[in-house]
Order: sequence, then structure tokens, then C-alpha cells
Amino acid sequence: MAGYSVWAVEGIPEIVDGEDLPALLLAAIPDAEDGDILVVSSKIVSKAEGRMIAAADREQAITDETVRVVATRRSSVGRTRIVENRLGIVQAAAGVDSSNVPEGHVLLLPVDPDGSARRIAAAFRERGARVGVVVTDTLGRPWRTGQTDAAIGAAGVQVLADLRGTHDAHGRRLDVTLPAVGDELAAAADLVKGKAASLPVAVVRGLGHLVAELDAPGARLLVRAAEQDMFRLGSDEAYDEGYHDGFDAGVREAGGGDRDDET
Amino acid sequence: MAGYSVWAVEGIPEIVDGEDLPALLLAAIPDAEDGDILVVSSKIVSKAEGRMIAAADREQAITDETVRVVATRRSSVGRTRIVENRLGIVQAAAGVDSSNVPEGHVLLLPVDPDGSARRIAAAFRERGARVGVVVTDTLGRPWRTGQTDAAIGAAGVQVLADLRGTHDAHGRRLDVTLPAVGDELAAAADLVKGKAASLPVAVVRGLGHLVAELDAPGARLLVRAAEQDMFRLGSDEAYDEGYHDGFDAGVREAGGGDRDDET
Repeated sequence: MAGYSVWAVEGIPEIVDGEDLPALLLAAIPDAEDGDILVVSSKIVSKAEGRMIAAADREQAITDETVRVVATRRSSVGRTRIVENRLGIVQAAAGVDSSNVPEGHVLLLPVDPDGSARRIAAAFRERGARVGVVVTDTLGRPWRTGQTDAAIGAAGVQVLADLRGTHDAHGRRLDVTLPAVGDELAAAADLVKGKAASLPVAVVRGLGHLVAELDAPGARLLVRAAEQDMFRLGSDEAYDEGYHDGFDAGVREAGGGDRDDET
Repeated sequence: MAGYSVWAVEGIPEIVDGEDLPALLLAAIPDAEDGDILVVSSKIVSKAEGRMIAAADREQAITDETVRVVATRRSSVGRTRIVENRLGIVQAAAGVDSSNVPEGHVLLLPVDPDGSARRIAAAFRERGARVGVVVTDTLGRPWRTGQTDAAIGAAGVQVLADLRGTHDAHGRRLDVTLPAVGDELAAAADLVKGKAASLPVAVVRGLGHLVAELDAPGARLLVRAAEQDMFRLGSDEAYDEGYHDGFDAGVREAGGGDRDDET
């Protein structure tokens, strides 16, 4: 019965700016073993790294974190912006979080979640436990309701299990299969971490084959470049771009080639 | 140490058309307990339900399964079509699978994966084990590399854990948080099921609070309607639609209101 187990780490206190998170986690998980994977909510990483800022205007904070607007929707509950942030991650509100922080504050994502994960993994490895670390955030997704946790930082753990070149039972190559195990670990951990409860860390034990060298590629590997993405822009936004370009072309066509800048 | 464990079920044989899958799973998992969640790859459900068809032309099979084309891309390895299928699920190739099937055949998705899950869950409940069942498929996703398993069928298990109305540690309502636990269960199971290995079933034990009545909403609940989706169409496709409409409008504008049907 090969398998694995997952549990939430009890007793993690409210994290404050300047907290030594690796040391705190070492104390909270004294029985960490080789092959364990620690899954840590980015929220506590951000708090330890001083990423909570006073922000009267959450919308401005989102704008400041945005590299590229992907899609915007207005509804009765306000404006939703799906944007690409500095990490290349496409998500709602650029990961700017106002839950579980004091009124008038927002929490930004860690500056370098792969680096944050690496510092935690290194601390455990120095103590003799060869662990992997995944730093997570909660992401919505097109076409499906609800959210799942995903890996926004990782160290010492595979995030993509490359099966290309392996074969199925009929001897065919599994050429397009590339399980995003980093995200699957994040999802598995979310089932015990819980958002209302204060359980921001889980341990996954039994998947040691996914633990890798400390300098293995981090969660950046899970980010697809916009130019390779069939959904790099929201449908409305792409339609509007097309409409604008088409309108200009139509005016030129009908006007016999004269460029009309009225549009 | 609250938590859960996941393991793959050994000894599941190659499934053939007409197989009584509930009976086979009852025999393979004799020690199923109240609160267990069985996670079953749709591939074996499809095979048992006779969804493997001879198909010289996989492209035609995909077309036949498609309700709506969302996006298309041509590349050196061929054409990728992201489509909505009869189940409302948006995925590559309409879920038409040609791995782990004999040459010249393809495997279609189950006709009603929620119903398939319900039949399995009912069989276990008749034997006295109140289990939940998730039927999975492997889905790509925009903006992120690789694939994760997701729930395309479910019975007797929550697929969305509604936290709306609950509060965070600061007393704020978690109004938009709706964890897609059905998909997270599928992801957690994929970490042990493996695609090259013949391990199409996993048991999740320890998350009994997610087990629900047999008539609880199935995986359909995880499908977002296209009209509510900011990414209902690929960026190129939406641009092209906009361009076409804009061109017509531009021609009308420049031509003084005459409709020009040349476009």
C-alpha cells in the first residue's frame, strides 16, 4: 500500500513582520524527515517578509502590483481584474489579499517565492532533513467554478513531473503528459490547511521521489509565457482590440486607402 | 495530528467493455470505510461503459464530441483544439484520448460521469461503506504549464466547499472563497495514481467531512457557464470576431451607412 499522508501543522502563531520563518517552522515541525514536502501558504511568507502594507485603496495596490491587465469585469460586487503580476502569475487582483489582515491593510505576494521556499528548505536540510518546500496561493481558473491552491514558489521539489518519453501500457509515448505536481501538492495540502482556520502549513509525507536538489527549477517553471498562451487576453478585451483594428481597416477600405484617425 | 492519507489501489486489471465496474471496485477495495473517497480515472469508467471506439481519424472523433470550439492553435506537432464538450467541460481535444488504447482506437469520456460516480458510490453504500466517489480527467489550463487532474464526475462528496459567510481571524467574511475540493481531491489522487503505471484508482481516507448525501450536486457544479466566463473564447478567436465586426462598422461609417457585404 504505497501512498502518502498529509496533515496540517498545529500551533503556528500569527506571523509578524521580521519573523524568522525558517526557524519558526523548524521548531513547529521538529520531526521532519527526509522526503517530506512542506506546503506553506504564501500569506505567512508575505507577513514574515514585511509585505503587509497600509493601503486605504486596495484598487491602487492592485494596480501597483500589475504588470499587464489580462481581463476586467464589472459586476454588482465591484470590479474584478485578472492580471499578470511581477512573478508572471496570472490571477485575480494580482494576489493582493485583504483577508486575514487588519482593516486598512493589504498583503502583497512575496517578492521572490522561489527564494523564500529555498530559504526554508535550506534550513531543514542544514538540520539533516532533506525536505522540499512549496509556497502556495489560491487561484481561480477559467471555465471552472471555485478556486484551487497552486504553487507560486518551490524549492527542493519537482514542480513538473516530466513523463515525456515514457510509454503507456500499449507502448505509445506519453508525449504531452506533464503533470504539474507542484500545483497538485498545493491542492492536496489545501484540503487540510483550511482558510478560515489558522492552519497555514501542511506536511506531505510519502512522496519523497518528488524531492529534488535545492537548485532544481522553482515554481517559475509553472508559469506559461503570455505569447505562448491561447488565453493571454480576456475574450472581451481581445474582441475590443480586434474591433478597433477592424474598424480602422474598414474605414481605410471604404475610403479608398485613406487613413482615418477619427477612431 | 488531523490529516488524511492517499494510496493507489493495486491489482486493477485492464478494463473491458461491459465490465461491472462497481462490482470490480468492491472486490478491489474490500476494506473501504465510511468517509473514504474513491478517486477513479475516467479512462476505466469509459472503457467499462463501452466508450472505446474504432477511429481511424482522431480529429473527426474530436469534432464529433465538440459542442463549441473555444480556441485552436496550429503548431509543429499538429493542431490543438480547446473545446467545450457535451458535459460543459472545456478541455483540449474534447477529452478524446488515444493513450493506453489500442492503435486505431480512441476513448471518449463517459456519457454521464456524475451518474457513473453515483453507481459506484451506491454499490459501496449498499455494502455498508458510506463513501464518496470522484471521477477524474487530466486537464491543461491557461497561463500555467503542465496538467492537473480534475473532477469531471462526482457523487456522495462535496465538490465545492462553500466558505462564503464564514469569517477569517479578523472577523471579515470570506465572501469569494469557494475551494474546489472536488478538483483538489482529483489532484491529490493523481500524485499516487500515475499515468504510465496502471493505477487508475486511489483511496483518500481521513476527509470524511467532505462525504455527502448521494444526491448532492455532482461535478457539473464545477463547470462555469460560458456566458459567465471572461475567457469563453481564445484571444485570437475573440480578436478575429472583433475585427470582423469592427471592419463592417468601419466600412459603414466611411460609406455613410451603406452596408458592405464584401467582408
